[in-house]
Amino acid sequence: MTRIALGLHYDGAAFSGWQSQPHRNTVQDRLEDAIGQFAGSRVLTTVAGRTDTGVHALGQVIHIDTELTREPFSWVRGVNAFLPPSISLQWAKPVDDSFHARFLAFERMYYYALYVGPHRVPLVHGRAGYLMLPPGKGLDVDAMRTAAGCLLGEHDFSAFRAAECQAKSPVKTMYDITLKADGDWLFVRFRASAFLHHMVRNLMGCLVAVGRGRNPPEWLAEVLAGRNRAKAAPTFMPDGLYLAGVKYPEQYQIPVADTAASLFHGVFANDPVA
Amino acid sequence: MTRIALGLHYDGAAFSGWQSQPHRNTVQDRLEDAIGQFAGSRVLTTVAGRTDTGVHALGQVIHIDTELTREPFSWVRGVNAFLPPSISLQWAKPVDDSFHARFLAFERMYYYALYVGPHRVPLVHGRAGYLMLPPGKGLDVDAMRTAAGCLLGEHDFSAFRAAECQAKSPVKTMYDITLKADGDWLFVRFRASAFLHHMVRNLMGCLVAVGRGRNPPEWLAEVLAGRNRAKAAPTFMPDGLYLAGVKYPEQYQIPVADTAASLFHGVFANDPVA
Repeated sequence: MTRIALGLHYDGAAFSGWQSQPHRNTVQDRLEDAIGQFAGSRVLTTVAGRTDTGVHALGQVIHIDTELTREPFSWVRGVNAFLPPSISLQWAKPVDDSFHARFLAFERMYYYALYVGPHRVPLVHGRAGYLMLPPGKGLDVDAMRTAAGCLLGEHDFSAFRAAECQAKSPVKTMYDITLKADGDWLFVRFRASAFLHHMVRNLMGCLVAVGRGRNPPEWLAEVLAGRNRAKAAPTFMPDGLYLAGVKYPEQYQIPVADTAASLFHGVFANDPVA
Repeated sequence: MTRIALGLHYDGAAFSGWQSQPHRNTVQDRLEDAIGQFAGSRVLTTVAGRTDTGVHALGQVIHIDTELTREPFSWVRGVNAFLPPSISLQWAKPVDDSFHARFLAFERMYYYALYVGPHRVPLVHGRAGYLMLPPGKGLDVDAMRTAAGCLLGEHDFSAFRAAECQAKSPVKTMYDITLKADGDWLFVRFRASAFLHHMVRNLMGCLVAVGRGRNPPEWLAEVLAGRNRAKAAPTFMPDGLYLAGVKYPEQYQIPVADTAASLFHGVFANDPVA
């Protein structure tokens, strides 16, 4: 048996999230089918981050155990031949048995891409969040930055946790939240030890409420401290959310950035918030 | 009767091109249906550039004649309410009767966005061209630039014209072709008085053949001079092609750039080849 780590991209709009379901229209089901066809036997996947319906990945990581011996490039080309255009492996890497895609990940990075304008934009439909504001109106990004400050560090994030969340603990460490406004776009990068179910979308809902002036920046600290989901803003749409990277201990040499291939090339490709 | 110019975006992957057809799955049919529903009567559209199946628009321009009197913003919001997410008006502007979206356009600008890499990229599927090259291999962009030089100025472009082309003359003026390589991407901007049917896709096919070393740069001048479509490379895929702008005499004050809203934000938004 060899353990192999695999990096993948997917367009979440086409699937009911990562996790396998009886109807099988999930990324995990499609991927396990394709790997099974290539390997000639059933193969189970273990994933770094389970994404929701409509959430995309540019840097998802999984591992599998297999008897099949192939070069990394052959794994990628071979499995991709059995995948729909909405899912694609980007790299493969043999790793020793101590590697685990979920338990050894010590940082996850998500991006939220939000288009703010008076009219819908067809060519980013399903791939960016959209906030309709009249011409000349925009978000108060400075207020959003101020509000985000209270989230940094170790906190109980229960206020931003979906009822269905299966995490053992609501305590996570937020390393960084960076906001970058660029024309009619707002890009937000979240880096944390891990995220609860719907956590980024719930945080985006709250940050947008502050950016629109519906709540003052201090309100977010109150919501966080209250640990009550009912006090937070509604869950924001999944369309603009991207799992963009997962970090592992250096010894495994897992690729972090898929700079080649992001949707928002020239922004994401070179890290929009750097 | 008032003449109104309208600017629109669409995701061409969803439609059988611009021009109305009996099955009605075209941009023109959907748009005329939506305008008709908003205006309460049948309205015909005249377009700047008829795009093929799979070709996108970020700066398409049309005009209509209507009895209905509404503010420009109401036109845009109102018609968009009847359109699918893959089409969206961006602006409306009353113009005098001498304006004509097709006959007065003196320059059209197209972009081609090409992703070159070893593996498919799901999040740009249908929205960028894709050329599979092994890791470490790339296009010779300098050779492509040299080849493109012969196309500038007034020429008979019959070598790059589809059999179905309805243009009265194959003679057009190419003002500029600019290539910009950026990581695994190549962006090509074409500016001409007008384009023949399939002309940009046929030119892309030839430029890529030069970039891969299959033909020397001088070959393109021979193809142009030969005026024989059979000597040119195959028509390149439509996925990465965008009608990005149309220019009219200044007196009409037609907006040229929809900088807000391009797919390749940070590249297209700020003109990727400037």
